[in-house]
Amino acid sequence: MAAMNNPSKIGVGVIGAGRIGQLHIEHIAQNIPEAELIAICGLNISDAESLAEQFNVPIVTTDYAPLLTNPRIDAVLVASSTDTHVEISQAAAKAGKHIFCEKPIALDLQQIDETLAIVEAAGVKFQIGFNRRFDASFSRVREAIAGGEIGEPHILRITSRDPAPPPIEYVKVSGGIFLDMTIHDFDMARYLIGDEVVEVYATGGVRVDPRIGKAGDIDTAVITLKFQNGVIGTIDNSREAVYGYDQRVEVFGSKGMVTAANPPTDTVTFSGHNGTRAASPPYFFIERYKPAYLAELQAFFTCIQEDTTPPVTGTDGRAPVVLGFAALKSLRENRPVLMSEI
Amino acid sequence: MAAMNNPSKIGVGVIGAGRIGQLHIEHIAQNIPEAELIAICGLNISDAESLAEQFNVPIVTTDYAPLLTNPRIDAVLVASSTDTHVEISQAAAKAGKHIFCEKPIALDLQQIDETLAIVEAAGVKFQIGFNRRFDASFSRVREAIAGGEIGEPHILRITSRDPAPPPIEYVKVSGGIFLDMTIHDFDMARYLIGDEVVEVYATGGVRVDPRIGKAGDIDTAVITLKFQNGVIGTIDNSREAVYGYDQRVEVFGSKGMVTAANPPTDTVTFSGHNGTRAASPPYFFIERYKPAYLAELQAFFTCIQEDTTPPVTGTDGRAPVVLGFAALKSLRENRPVLMSEI
Amino acid sequence: MAAMNNPSKIGVGVIGAGRIGQLHIEHIAQNIPEAELIAICGLNISDAESLAEQFNVPIVTTDYAPLLTNPRIDAVLVASSTDTHVEISQAAAKAGKHIFCEKPIALDLQQIDETLAIVEAAGVKFQIGFNRRFDASFSRVREAIAGGEIGEPHILRITSRDPAPPPIEYVKVSGGIFLDMTIHDFDMARYLIGDEVVEVYATGGVRVDPRIGKAGDIDTAVITLKFQNGVIGTIDNSREAVYGYDQRVEVFGSKGMVTAANPPTDTVTFSGHNGTRAASPPYFFIERYKPAYLAELQAFFTCIQEDTTPPVTGTDGRAPVVLGFAALKSLRENRPVLMSEI
Amino acid sequence: MAAMNNPSKIGVGVIGAGRIGQLHIEHIAQNIPEAELIAICGLNISDAESLAEQFNVPIVTTDYAPLLTNPRIDAVLVASSTDTHVEISQAAAKAGKHIFCEKPIALDLQQIDETLAIVEAAGVKFQIGFNRRFDASFSRVREAIAGGEIGEPHILRITSRDPAPPPIEYVKVSGGIFLDMTIHDFDMARYLIGDEVVEVYATGGVRVDPRIGKAGDIDTAVITLKFQNGVIGTIDNSREAVYGYDQRVEVFGSKGMVTAANPPTDTVTFSGHNGTRAASPPYFFIERYKPAYLAELQAFFTCIQEDTTPPVTGTDGRAPVVLGFAALKSLRENRPVLMSEI
Repeated sequence: MAAMNNPSKIGVGVIGAGRIGQLHIEHIAQNIPEAELIAICGLNISDAESLAEQFNVPIVTTDYAPLLTNPRIDAVLVASSTDTHVEISQAAAKAGKHIFCEKPIALDLQQIDETLAIVEAAGVKFQIGFNRRFDASFSRVREAIAGGEIGEPHILRITSRDPAPPPIEYVKVSGGIFLDMTIHDFDMARYLIGDEVVEVYATGGVRVDPRIGKAGDIDTAVITLKFQNGVIGTIDNSREAVYGYDQRVEVFGSKGMVTAANPPTDTVTFSGHNGTRAASPPYFFIERYKPAYLAELQAFFTCIQEDTTPPVTGTDGRAPVVLGFAALKSLRENRPVLMSEI
Repeated sequence: MAAMNNPSKIGVGVIGAGRIGQLHIEHIAQNIPEAELIAICGLNISDAESLAEQFNVPIVTTDYAPLLTNPRIDAVLVASSTDTHVEISQAAAKAGKHIFCEKPIALDLQQIDETLAIVEAAGVKFQIGFNRRFDASFSRVREAIAGGEIGEPHILRITSRDPAPPPIEYVKVSGGIFLDMTIHDFDMARYLIGDEVVEVYATGGVRVDPRIGKAGDIDTAVITLKFQNGVIGTIDNSREAVYGYDQRVEVFGSKGMVTAANPPTDTVTFSGHNGTRAASPPYFFIERYKPAYLAELQAFFTCIQEDTTPPVTGTDGRAPVVLGFAALKSLRENRPVLMSEI
Repeated sequence: MAAMNNPSKIGVGVIGAGRIGQLHIEHIAQNIPEAELIAICGLNISDAESLAEQFNVPIVTTDYAPLLTNPRIDAVLVASSTDTHVEISQAAAKAGKHIFCEKPIALDLQQIDETLAIVEAAGVKFQIGFNRRFDASFSRVREAIAGGEIGEPHILRITSRDPAPPPIEYVKVSGGIFLDMTIHDFDMARYLIGDEVVEVYATGGVRVDPRIGKAGDIDTAVITLKFQNGVIGTIDNSREAVYGYDQRVEVFGSKGMVTAANPPTDTVTFSGHNGTRAASPPYFFIERYKPAYLAELQAFFTCIQEDTTPPVTGTDGRAPVVLGFAALKSLRENRPVLMSEI
Repeated sequence: MAAMNNPSKIGVGVIGAGRIGQLHIEHIAQNIPEAELIAICGLNISDAESLAEQFNVPIVTTDYAPLLTNPRIDAVLVASSTDTHVEISQAAAKAGKHIFCEKPIALDLQQIDETLAIVEAAGVKFQIGFNRRFDASFSRVREAIAGGEIGEPHILRITSRDPAPPPIEYVKVSGGIFLDMTIHDFDMARYLIGDEVVEVYATGGVRVDPRIGKAGDIDTAVITLKFQNGVIGTIDNSREAVYGYDQRVEVFGSKGMVTAANPPTDTVTFSGHNGTRAASPPYFFIERYKPAYLAELQAFFTCIQEDTTPPVTGTDGRAPVVLGFAALKSLRENRPVLMSEI
């Protein structure tokens, strides 16, 4: 296996072999020549073994500890369940491993801050998995704004709707819609506007499935954001858009407006007695954001190679969690909540 | 002039010969065969005379009183300045004339209520000029919702941006953005959802022109509406969209989404080195809503002929004013305001 | 009726009170203040009288002769059946009346040439009713080409499909699809490219209705045009597009491409389980080209007032007829036909 | 390298390591788990070696013969220059290897027929590289037609324009535009309509680059096709569309129309003073058809595994060459040419 264990490549251990972990494994194995998969750690050992076999990964474990002591492993991807992110990230940082960690870092700000401090002390790279920033259309929108194409931004609109709600069991442990789903939109808002939110007003309800309400959550939400620079943003979320994954942004400014629409799954139209019919958007996040998931990993490995700051920092990982808490407080107290209150 | 003064036609007096008044005059003269223009009342007598000459209108005055005593006049169109609507409408109702009144009826709820009571007592038709309801696309959206095509509505989004701010002198007397501009969107929201708003949260700022701020108003606003039936709506407004008059709606529900986009001024695209370019939307309300302005008049004359309830009632004229007050209170107090507080 | 019989206005007689004649009457009465309708001549006298009453036209006849001797009539609109165009146009020219003549002038080149000579000798305006040139989108395409926006044009594509075939009785006397339907596209081709066709290749068949074949005509056609300047154009025609009137153009050149799509009847989209649905194009020519029909009349009266050359000349009326003959010859002989052969 | 040389996988040799060969190598290595790359044969040995290293391919040669005797190789991909396709395909068939051959098989019908006979006698799979059939949008259009969604097809339009002409040296040996470029469109026409062409009329010129004319070729073409079933098709080609690779189809039938537009490179629009701007199509065939190139290989390996007929047969490879000859004859003789004449 000549090409394997190539010391010129960045050795990688993937922790967590669920849907996102598998996607990362596939991308590293097939599309990122500068990285080499050394180990997969997964709770379900037979799944992990099958992935290892498919992608020629030499080490398979159910315990992440051996990855952190393996000198061939330079970086870990933390794609395990949210409640393990802090422990693994902190241990990995102490072991001198670079870290790519799925969002959210944690649902506890003290734990996040502790982790950021440890990571900083260790001097390792720490990138958060806000994949949507790497979508070609959204990053083009960001460029347009940063490049002054729309002048000063005034109004931001984000539409973010899932095609179907997650299982109720997941809803119960997800941290709620704001920390599970809107967190991506909070990040997108900060990314597009390039500024910090100072106040949040959230409202919502249970319109999709009463079981979500019984689980203490909502499934439909509209959030208003006020930025330091005066931009006003709104986000609307639903757990069920029957026409597919709906992910659009619009930024309006003094010199124009820039938007990103849903990509069509094909470009076919049919015209008949009842008008013209076009395709739906891609079904869900894997279909829609696969290239973005790859691009975020490429950026991570590039910043290791070039020793630069990751494009999504620990601070970027922390801010949307704070926004989630603010939104939740706003929803409960039915009033705008200052970020300084959290 | 054989066809003139035809008693089988509805005799009409138009009060106010500004931009909207002129449009109504043109429409009645050219496109509404069942109505006949008997009189034009305008403060600027030479303008009014020139219109009268152009459209063969026999009577021209600067005072509306003679119109109300003219037995040949069955209906008046009140397109004079807002501060005259109440006096004229009340007098017209007492004189037994049907009334088409531009929005808003007034900026004072007591005056509105008094007017509605007088109109009701008089038994005359009273239609409010919320022209956008008669736009082919928006009325098709309403039909789709009323017909259950999107199931239960969950989220409403209205984008409503003017191409350029009005003169500062107008801003000072307009009643503010919520009562001058958003009022149309409040009406659209009620029309599309077919339900009443119970709570309003408004935020905004001065982003377009500091003189608007000095005049005590804002020029950029985002308003969140909660409806009795659980729908959450947002409206965003700007006084200046450099790409033209931006008037879009989107309603999302349990079975799908219905949207109305801006109509293009032409269907031409140009593809070159820098992508593909398409036309802007129509410049402003006259260009965009001319057919809707005609359709609302046709509906008014039809309801006179068929003795039915006008499609936009006095109640429909009152509700958006209340919403405007609630929005203003919300903006000032930075909190959601219940409609029951107004 | 003070404003009537106003000598400062261009007095107009409309000859032919069918669908197009009625549209012209309505437009002159309502939208062209510089013209005044003096007379309507229609074979069906009760229809003509009813139009005259509706639009206050003093004279109604079944014979066009009195119109030509009426000193108050400056111009005639010839919207009668094709076989009368030559006789009426020649008589009108000799009477010194300006002429707006529906297409085609005639189906006989000698008659056309004779008519053009008489018109020229008389020094009256003679405009042909190729209304589509006045469509906002098509004229914008022409401007783009004339202004060099696409560089040198290389390829032209015209799609022109009716929503439903005409009655078989009409098909029999129509002169065939090339002279009845494609004639508009031949004119559009010359208009957009601003050059003359040198060769035509036509092919087609009977796909829509076998009765059209029995009547000696085809209902589906594809025509290739070679222009003097090297542009190659194709036109495709069908007598039945179930989704509505389909009228599109595309011109491709060295610096880009310009297209004009069908205008939507509304801008509403509905997204559901089966993709996204948008509106059909307008049903047929009246719905689609009403503004173009008005614009061509406005241009006609302007060129009378300003004594300029009409935007669609007699030569422009002749050329598409020659193209129609060439196409017919090409179809019959199944070979490209040079225009010099006709 | 445990997973390598896995006898349960289809062993593959790729002959030709140019642009398309490299794409096939990448796809097999990364995306087709049922196939294993055993050998790369390339004229440029250092390029081939570098590919072999990158993708862990054990054998590298400049001579294809060893591939045909290698028992581990079950199938070869022929992506070498066109003039070698016949020799290699025939040798591979005689060696019992399945063959995926890039288009065209040859520019000589006798050689093609000989090859098809040898392949058939050998009983190996023989698939031709008409990749566009595997484009998601075009295959959806084919499904719509085959499924009767547009009723009986009447008119076909194919637009196929390259972003920039190939080098003049390539033009000289390419066989001409019809056999190099239009060949794909001929295949697309047969694929979409599911029927055979009976007559071809071709016209064209030199509009893009006079050197192409000097090389005896044209760079702009419009071709009319008549199908056995009565469908009339047109293809238009240009060697230079400055806005990018333009690949669209439209099929019109008795019950409606189905179209496939260019996919946008992103879904971003910018609205400003000069209208709304959207992205260009992908630059060229690699960018546009990468997923189609993968899908055709997947189909090839599936038909080996399941022992079914390839989706693009030798006959499908032959027909467009005959169409190319007919088009050339038509262009030279300026008349429609029957397929039976070739």
